[in-house]
Amino acid sequence: MANVSEDILKKVKAWAPYVDAKLGFRNHWYPVMFSGDIEEGEVKKLKLLGEPLLVKRIDGKLHCIKDKCLHRGVPLSEKLDCKTKDTITCWYHAWTYRWETGELCDIMTNPSSAQIGRHKLKVYPVEEAKNCVFIYLGDGDTPPLSRDTPPGFLDDGLEILGICRELKANWRLGVENGFDPSHIYIHKDAVLVQGNDLVLPLGFAPGEDRSQQTRVVDDDSEGGRKGVYDLIGEHGMPVMEGTVDGEVVREGNFGNTLVANDISIWMPGVLKVNPWPNPDMVQFEWYVPIDENNHYYFQTLGKKCESQEEIEAFKHAFEFKWKKMALMGFNDDDIWAREAMVDFYSDDLGWVNEILFEPDEAIIAWRKLASKHNQGIQTFDDVRK
Amino acid sequence: MANVSEDILKKVKAWAPYVDAKLGFRNHWYPVMFSGDIEEGEVKKLKLLGEPLLVKRIDGKLHCIKDKCLHRGVPLSEKLDCKTKDTITCWYHAWTYRWETGELCDIMTNPSSAQIGRHKLKVYPVEEAKNCVFIYLGDGDTPPLSRDTPPGFLDDGLEILGICRELKANWRLGVENGFDPSHIYIHKDAVLVQGNDLVLPLGFAPGEDRSQQTRVVDDDSEGGRKGVYDLIGEHGMPVMEGTVDGEVVREGNFGNTLVANDISIWMPGVLKVNPWPNPDMVQFEWYVPIDENNHYYFQTLGKKCESQEEIEAFKHAFEFKWKKMALMGFNDDDIWAREAMVDFYSDDLGWVNEILFEPDEAIIAWRKLASKHNQGIQTFDDVRK
Amino acid sequence: MANVSEDILKKVKAWAPYVDAKLGFRNHWYPVMFSGDIEEGEVKKLKLLGEPLLVKRIDGKLHCIKDKCLHRGVPLSEKLDCKTKDTITCWYHAWTYRWETGELCDIMTNPSSAQIGRHKLKVYPVEEAKNCVFIYLGDGDTPPLSRDTPPGFLDDGLEILGICRELKANWRLGVENGFDPSHIYIHKDAVLVQGNDLVLPLGFAPGEDRSQQTRVVDDDSEGGRKGVYDLIGEHGMPVMEGTVDGEVVREGNFGNTLVANDISIWMPGVLKVNPWPNPDMVQFEWYVPIDENNHYYFQTLGKKCESQEEIEAFKHAFEFKWKKMALMGFNDDDIWAREAMVDFYSDDLGWVNEILFEPDEAIIAWRKLASKHNQGIQTFDDVRK
Repeated sequence: MANVSEDILKKVKAWAPYVDAKLGFRNHWYPVMFSGDIEEGEVKKLKLLGEPLLVKRIDGKLHCIKDKCLHRGVPLSEKLDCKTKDTITCWYHAWTYRWETGELCDIMTNPSSAQIGRHKLKVYPVEEAKNCVFIYLGDGDTPPLSRDTPPGFLDDGLEILGICRELKANWRLGVENGFDPSHIYIHKDAVLVQGNDLVLPLGFAPGEDRSQQTRVVDDDSEGGRKGVYDLIGEHGMPVMEGTVDGEVVREGNFGNTLVANDISIWMPGVLKVNPWPNPDMVQFEWYVPIDENNHYYFQTLGKKCESQEEIEAFKHAFEFKWKKMALMGFNDDDIWAREAMVDFYSDDLGWVNEILFEPDEAIIAWRKLASKHNQGIQTFDDVRK
Repeated sequence: MANVSEDILKKVKAWAPYVDAKLGFRNHWYPVMFSGDIEEGEVKKLKLLGEPLLVKRIDGKLHCIKDKCLHRGVPLSEKLDCKTKDTITCWYHAWTYRWETGELCDIMTNPSSAQIGRHKLKVYPVEEAKNCVFIYLGDGDTPPLSRDTPPGFLDDGLEILGICRELKANWRLGVENGFDPSHIYIHKDAVLVQGNDLVLPLGFAPGEDRSQQTRVVDDDSEGGRKGVYDLIGEHGMPVMEGTVDGEVVREGNFGNTLVANDISIWMPGVLKVNPWPNPDMVQFEWYVPIDENNHYYFQTLGKKCESQEEIEAFKHAFEFKWKKMALMGFNDDDIWAREAMVDFYSDDLGWVNEILFEPDEAIIAWRKLASKHNQGIQTFDDVRK
Repeated sequence: MANVSEDILKKVKAWAPYVDAKLGFRNHWYPVMFSGDIEEGEVKKLKLLGEPLLVKRIDGKLHCIKDKCLHRGVPLSEKLDCKTKDTITCWYHAWTYRWETGELCDIMTNPSSAQIGRHKLKVYPVEEAKNCVFIYLGDGDTPPLSRDTPPGFLDDGLEILGICRELKANWRLGVENGFDPSHIYIHKDAVLVQGNDLVLPLGFAPGEDRSQQTRVVDDDSEGGRKGVYDLIGEHGMPVMEGTVDGEVVREGNFGNTLVANDISIWMPGVLKVNPWPNPDMVQFEWYVPIDENNHYYFQTLGKKCESQEEIEAFKHAFEFKWKKMALMGFNDDDIWAREAMVDFYSDDLGWVNEILFEPDEAIIAWRKLASKHNQGIQTFDDVRK
């Protein structure tokens, strides 16, 4: 059953699956925390595509299990009860599950129960890469993590640092704010732009030929990755003078540092801005569905480092400069912009009533790509199971 | 599509349009603030019949525009961005609208967009009279303000002063509390009544002939105004002794000052009490729909003044006596009475389950008048547009 | 009309009426406060099965009337107005009702109204027994209080003391937590268990024969009472060693004091644990529906007392030991356990998706009994009336 009314889905035919995907796309990899956030033996609680989950590190390896006992549906996390390293026991009636498989392996209150061995709690694959923890929120065969990360992210020698925040907006409002070519207007007064001497136009006037605005990757040329490159900077005109009634009322930023000439969005919703916020760095950021009203804003910066010394220098610069000035500072404006869209899209009618304009071609290409190449639409039924 | 279920509307046939009008009546004038509340160049935000609006004073004249960008639906007020005197620019993608017409006159991020000149943001007429700011929340030809104000309100020489508050109750609960002949029972202990030596019965026993309880103005005799006069004071018996089981348990107030002998309600929901709270004053009060759960309680007192000296004296008396004792003090009891009705009517079933009695004839006459002479029922679709 | 969707009710056929009874069962007696909580002349406000109610003590006897004026639906309690001992007057238009019958006996604002004597506000029978105040939330003939109290509760010489709390969980989650044989796992670390040297297993392994797990009383053998005895302690094996993967990870409590060998649940939802928390006491506790999301947790302890001296000693022990250690302390764990089930059952789908196990036979027997022997299902229509 659809998450959105059929009446609305009919009106947004060209990207109906995307409009229906308010809970996100199932059968994809999503980052949810950093490796350093979870120590050996520790259990962390989170929500992904509406599903309450627990993650535990056992002998170094991470495991993920659904945080909802099969018996009476209570959260295991209400009172964590781990009797052995490899199992988790429900605090209520002592139903006990294996972290590895989810198997109901024991019931301490009734050790001879016929239910033992007959049921499995849902478990999901977890992988760590670049100090990020990824969960495959899906069923069946597990695809390689590379399929759901942007080109370059997993490259050898690329050091990744980042932060993760929980925001009160649907995940698609995050993607569409990030990949939107003309949203840069909101950043015109950012300290980063001045302080880092960046070139930043007010917007872009695309050329006549819509097909030149984007380049879609929907074959297997990128290792199975599906994505859209935004080419408006190349084939359109940057707007440096903003006019109202023929009068210039605002100028863009004429800096000396050229950045962000290579921007792309990838399934299942991850943006690559290259280079950014400095010519020697690249920003990758995910908009991870928590539920229909919230997403994790998972922001990372990557830098090629060839020695431990360079890594330490990057960590220091990240901590004392880029985290505050770029990931916070600059991107904080994106946060309230997404939140300002919430009301209009909250009853699903925003997708029908919006009026798009030429530079939104990039967003349209993303919507079509996501509608075609997603591996499944998460439903409220998936959440309940 | 109706705002209220057809099942309920069928059961309240005689005033179904009124029951359906939880968001108020469209195509009418409503006061929303006082002239002194908005200075030259200032922008104020408000909500009327569910619609978010902005009002700006330009060269003395007020303009009203919908506070929702046509592009992605964000509130312009989230971060006001006025680049020229006559325009307002959306902070997100710099779509720019004229205050006068609502025309999308420029898009600073893409100055050659084909959308420019093709769309209009909704604008509404604004008029100032008697120091009050009125918005015509409607479409098509604008009727004269006089049609939607009670007789006398616009008279030359009548000085108007007032206050405006936001209350958590549907607007109709405001009207029906104000125009209700027997609600005076709640005012029996008011300081104003004692302090101003007013005559105030506990209620009224109407005569046998229902037609004498009210006088309906639904022709053009009053300049197009439609309203109902409450005649219960004239044709009924004031109740000065309240009895339970034959025993007098409470008396009305036997003061020396006769007031409120001329009470009437007018479309689109404005009460006139004449004279009140003193023989030389008249109270006009509006119950302005903010949305289905809230209304502005817009209270004014009028006094004929023949000189600047008299005006100053009235202002002084208003500030130091009548505002606190009448508009607050006395009317504060009306506020909690309205709020106490909210639960019962919140699922629309109160209109079906209520049990009315004889003095409610005035309220019934109002419901029928409003059902017949409203100029349109605001819908949730109107709000979204 | 059902409270729960037909689709769900079909899937829980064996106890559909119980699943539908989210507002509780009508036509039963419920305790709502203690006798000492309401003095002569005092009026108390409460909610029962969704209905707002007022209780007043008049000449020693308690009366209960619906807290919603028939006229415009306002709560009489918004501003209590009792002009005579036997009546209550609405603060709004002075509609006046008799506490005894609910009759609209006077309208002070219009003493000759034809409505007087034609309407009745709903009133409900009230009885006091064992210092508890019971309301019969129902219509028609009033059954004896004994029918809806567990065997023994009304016995001569049994002194009853208790407390009453408001909890944020549906009443059925209260019953099912209390009567659940294996929920004792959550109490394994309770101070009461150690401090009072109680025997407390981790759970029970029932025998093969399901019919021996419970004894159902659904004839008239117990004075019309309908209930279920939990016999798992008798016919099953107590689990004193909890194992995971064959290893003992937790032991039950090997105390010297045997308690709780006689546990039963009774319509309309009251638990008897005998003896408890000491061999000379018995606990009776009700889970009284306030509305679909809340219940009163009405907890009492009974003790046979043969002299005033014994009564005083019991009162002292109750106040300084049992109230804190048993009714609070020990039972506080039950409170958060109920609240932890709320999410799963809140959309009614928990009743479909739960996976029960052998010891839940007691709960199943209760569900079937309640489905068969309830005297009526409270509906949202009953609440509105």
